[in-house]
Amino acid sequence: MSSAGIGDQVRALVFDVFGTVVDWRSSVIKAGEQLSQETGQTVDWPGFAEEWRRVGYHEQIARIRAGTAPYETTDVFMRHKLDELIPKYGIRGLSEQQIDWLHKVWHRLDPWTDSVKGLTRLKKKFVIATLSNGNVALLTNMAKHGGLPWDAILSAELVEKFKPEPEMYLSAGRFLGLPMDQVMMTAAHLRDLYASREHGMKTGFVRRDPEWGPNGKIEGEPDRARIDVAATSFLDLADQLGA
Amino acid sequence: MSSAGIGDQVRALVFDVFGTVVDWRSSVIKAGEQLSQETGQTVDWPGFAEEWRRVGYHEQIARIRAGTAPYETTDVFMRHKLDELIPKYGIRGLSEQQIDWLHKVWHRLDPWTDSVKGLTRLKKKFVIATLSNGNVALLTNMAKHGGLPWDAILSAELVEKFKPEPEMYLSAGRFLGLPMDQVMMTAAHLRDLYASREHGMKTGFVRRDPEWGPNGKIEGEPDRARIDVAATSFLDLADQLGA
Repeated sequence: MSSAGIGDQVRALVFDVFGTVVDWRSSVIKAGEQLSQETGQTVDWPGFAEEWRRVGYHEQIARIRAGTAPYETTDVFMRHKLDELIPKYGIRGLSEQQIDWLHKVWHRLDPWTDSVKGLTRLKKKFVIATLSNGNVALLTNMAKHGGLPWDAILSAELVEKFKPEPEMYLSAGRFLGLPMDQVMMTAAHLRDLYASREHGMKTGFVRRDPEWGPNGKIEGEPDRARIDVAATSFLDLADQLGA
Repeated sequence: MSSAGIGDQVRALVFDVFGTVVDWRSSVIKAGEQLSQETGQTVDWPGFAEEWRRVGYHEQIARIRAGTAPYETTDVFMRHKLDELIPKYGIRGLSEQQIDWLHKVWHRLDPWTDSVKGLTRLKKKFVIATLSNGNVALLTNMAKHGGLPWDAILSAELVEKFKPEPEMYLSAGRFLGLPMDQVMMTAAHLRDLYASREHGMKTGFVRRDPEWGPNGKIEGEPDRARIDVAATSFLDLADQLGA
């Protein structure tokens, strides 16, 4: 089936956000370096960003999904981890205002350079919405920060379940009033896409190798039996979907 | 306290939608008249619109709130009422496609003439979101139809409670991550505003007399002890809030 065909079958695109729409790694490092300048201390901000994301975010979501930690929003558990990482990385003398500002960097992540242009084109043909593990306030503030033109904010907070739990994917069809096969999950992460596929969604992969940092392991090649569209950017995605 | 002061205390405006942002009455009558033309029959569309709204919507929400009807989305119960009203008003020979199109007129309600301009101004200073008893798909599709530039879609569907239940108002602060007194409920209906006030919200009244039709009873004068801003349009509201 051609991609053009897919573009005519789909009514809505829902997006993973961290890594797919915005560059969390560079944004967190940049905020940290600004704090270093303000406070005159050297910190391993690349390591800090990596650990905040990998342990504070991914591992905490795994614990919540496993039932070994209670449900909390991303804002809440990312703050808990931040309070551990500050002493661990030897950071001293931050005011509560500075800590809150660093915590809220996740509300101010910068879009990849093609994100706003691509979303603006896609919005003309499709409903575009987030489908992110981030909480509603985080996603709403991030959209204002970066100019992301979402039609709706869909979030783990609305169902109190995190991807890849089925409830999250199913909520997209339910809230948008569409059959699952008219909704395309769009992500830079194959695991997210393959999980969405099990619930009947269309799948759009966008390669974002810089997410993984200079030494990281990039995403592999998509299994084209489970991926409807593979794109190099949101502009390429819009081209392939006829938007 | 001056209105300018209020504009600096508030971070987000959440809006009632039916009647406040969009003109449901004219939009429903217009859709009905188009169906009359297509099918060559005369129908009391003003009466039809009034009954669909008053009985199909308001009275059904009252039943759900009282526990005498189960929770359903507005899309679902408005369709049930439509299926009763079609024979009651002597309408014959509609195809399923025409019935669905009429049902979905609530997704295509036209904004009041000042709504988009006013919201666009307000969005530059505040987070703007719906806080409507309408379901998410309805509100999302309506925004695309009318060009309403919401930052987020907040809906009864997210909490499965209808205004004026406390959970609805409280959900605005929770989802937007703001103290209740930094969120302004904005509506053409004093009952909605007074209820929001009981949960600590700021209140903005916008007069929309045409909502009530040529023979309807318009909204009375606001009790200024419970209303922070009273405006004649969204442009006036933006002026008063310094947006």
